[in-house]
Amino acid sequence: MAAKPRPSRLSDDQLFDWLRLVRSENVGPRTFRALIDRYGGARAALEALPELARRGGAPRPIRLATVEEVERELGIALRLGVRFVASSEPDYPPLLGEIDSAPPLLACRGRIEALRQPTAAIVGSRNASAAGLTFADRLARGLGRAGYVVVSGLARGIDQRSHAASIETGAVGVLAGGHAKPYPNEAVPLIERMVEFGAVVSEMPIGQEPRGRDFPRRNRIVSGLALGTIVVEAARGSGSLITARFALEQNRQVFAVPGSPLDPRAEGTNDLLKQGATICTSVEDVVTALAPMRSRDLFSALEEGGAGGRERASFAIGREPESGVSPDDRFEQAHGPNDSAADRLDAVRDRIAALLGPSPVGLDDLARAADASARETRVALMELELAGRAEFSGGDRVAARIAGEAG
Amino acid sequence: MAAKPRPSRLSDDQLFDWLRLVRSENVGPRTFRALIDRYGGARAALEALPELARRGGAPRPIRLATVEEVERELGIALRLGVRFVASSEPDYPPLLGEIDSAPPLLACRGRIEALRQPTAAIVGSRNASAAGLTFADRLARGLGRAGYVVVSGLARGIDQRSHAASIETGAVGVLAGGHAKPYPNEAVPLIERMVEFGAVVSEMPIGQEPRGRDFPRRNRIVSGLALGTIVVEAARGSGSLITARFALEQNRQVFAVPGSPLDPRAEGTNDLLKQGATICTSVEDVVTALAPMRSRDLFSALEEGGAGGRERASFAIGREPESGVSPDDRFEQAHGPNDSAADRLDAVRDRIAALLGPSPVGLDDLARAADASARETRVALMELELAGRAEFSGGDRVAARIAGEAG
Repeated sequence: MAAKPRPSRLSDDQLFDWLRLVRSENVGPRTFRALIDRYGGARAALEALPELARRGGAPRPIRLATVEEVERELGIALRLGVRFVASSEPDYPPLLGEIDSAPPLLACRGRIEALRQPTAAIVGSRNASAAGLTFADRLARGLGRAGYVVVSGLARGIDQRSHAASIETGAVGVLAGGHAKPYPNEAVPLIERMVEFGAVVSEMPIGQEPRGRDFPRRNRIVSGLALGTIVVEAARGSGSLITARFALEQNRQVFAVPGSPLDPRAEGTNDLLKQGATICTSVEDVVTALAPMRSRDLFSALEEGGAGGRERASFAIGREPESGVSPDDRFEQAHGPNDSAADRLDAVRDRIAALLGPSPVGLDDLARAADASARETRVALMELELAGRAEFSGGDRVAARIAGEAG
Repeated sequence: MAAKPRPSRLSDDQLFDWLRLVRSENVGPRTFRALIDRYGGARAALEALPELARRGGAPRPIRLATVEEVERELGIALRLGVRFVASSEPDYPPLLGEIDSAPPLLACRGRIEALRQPTAAIVGSRNASAAGLTFADRLARGLGRAGYVVVSGLARGIDQRSHAASIETGAVGVLAGGHAKPYPNEAVPLIERMVEFGAVVSEMPIGQEPRGRDFPRRNRIVSGLALGTIVVEAARGSGSLITARFALEQNRQVFAVPGSPLDPRAEGTNDLLKQGATICTSVEDVVTALAPMRSRDLFSALEEGGAGGRERASFAIGREPESGVSPDDRFEQAHGPNDSAADRLDAVRDRIAALLGPSPVGLDDLARAADASARETRVALMELELAGRAEFSGGDRVAARIAGEAG
């Protein structure tokens, strides 16, 4: 196996460009990574964006984040004690770095290094029962004592109770919006306590109020930070079940706490058990099931590289750069100057755009249907996403972007 | 496969001898079957008993049931509307006939033919919660509508609620004692309603008050009558878990209803789920899981043979008589006149008696340890059981009988 790239911190200039790129229109986590891989850095990617979006069929010029917007976000971050951790940096939470849609930049308050410990997510209903809250409390305390950091989504009910019960052992919350608009507002005193031993993180622009669709996005980070996700109470259709689905897609363990068949708040968890989730009635159930994962080398102390150096969008285990081919070579291969290759890519992009519909499809199926290579498919999807015509969802699946939903 | 023996009814004389044999000291279901297999009938077995027990090392002569005792039991049965169904008869519940320890005679009130329909057992705590009772009611009603007869143990709580909810669709109760001493007494009005469409059965002497150890014995019949056993509520150590264990040993499906980890009445059921029981939160869960078993040919109408004919202790599928060797041949092979074979059997019996301890062991392991054939082991154990020195437990396992526990 090739040696892993040595993680290193971004320079201030590089961070500025990363933030500008990540805040530009239609740049999702996968496209961000593809851009950095192809252009070798965020600045070059920013320069290429307008042409890529045009090629993808954007109806109007792509909107890049302005220098002023980025300066303002950095300024607010400084004032709030928020710092940015890039997916290429040694502090980036190692488990999160493994998921397909890992945020390129995580805005953090508190001790992000808490996430180098084994981590479990506890999620559940906002309108939890007294029993559910008591069990979440017991579970979070027990997991903390067992050396786990507990992650959750800061929501009322199970989430907040889990955070409160694990303050001293490291509580990590994931915001659905930006740090300057903590949601729900009632969680603010809790957040202030959490950042002392734990952390609160967000991938969203610092001034962003969370919108409805930001909550499922947030949930993929909750599950992605953890070796396993425990659903304490969930009615059918509960957002906690989305977190469980993300955990499954991320190849993480899913636990469900059983409940009476007559309790609507247990319908979702009992359904998860029917689908094969691990039953959780005690801290030991979680500790036992996660023990094998815990021993992975993810949590060993990572050497820190110096500032600067070559940018890498991700620092995930198992995602080695393709050796022997430089990013520019690869770009050349896909985009010309060879005219026939460029023509072929245009044709592939058109076929893929026509194949995409409202239901997400897997990349492999899409490539097969479009009679395209994996590389051609990735390039085409990057351009389509930048043009606002394609959208990634969980589990490396992609769908047509529904018109009017841009933002 | 050899053709199945055609089931036939016992003559009145044969029934008398069966009842006398089954009520004699130390004659358990397995020994009963071994005796009938070896001696061809209950009368010959009764004659052989004293010598067999002596050979097994009985400290005093074995006590046979007296003719007067048997006459009295038959008289009480007539008065109470109880009739006896032998394991060789066509009315014997087909699923019960499959288990190792099937009672040779089942004393029945009501419509024993109800047990030719698919059957599910519902069991649970005596001190059930309101939710547990409501769920048992819903489950019993739904299973009845789905064409299932519901079996349970007549106990307070979940059992009685399950019976009451399935009266019209066929409710079958299993007594731990005899029909003349129905237990618990409060169940008497329920029993009277059950016998109209369903049945109440017992393997115990008709005048027997149930003792503590009779309840687990009863539980093997509850699970043995059913394709699957559903445990609705059970604390750790609950008798319902014994029923679940019997169901497993009998290769039947075990279902458990989940509950909150904070509810002690759900500890047993949640433990069963951890051990691989099927989760049950709805009637559909049971119906779906049992559908493949339901299609077996067990429930097709069985041809009834005429009265009399050769006695067979069991009518179980897959338990063909060993062909080509008559029972007498087999007895000859084991007991002489060949002296060296008899000497060998004495030696085997001594070795087995020495090997048995308080923890039950499997017959195969025992035969291996005693360096004996399966047939020698069966004969030796039959004699040891008759002598009150060995005792079978669930799953074809045997242990030393603890002194002073005879009765």
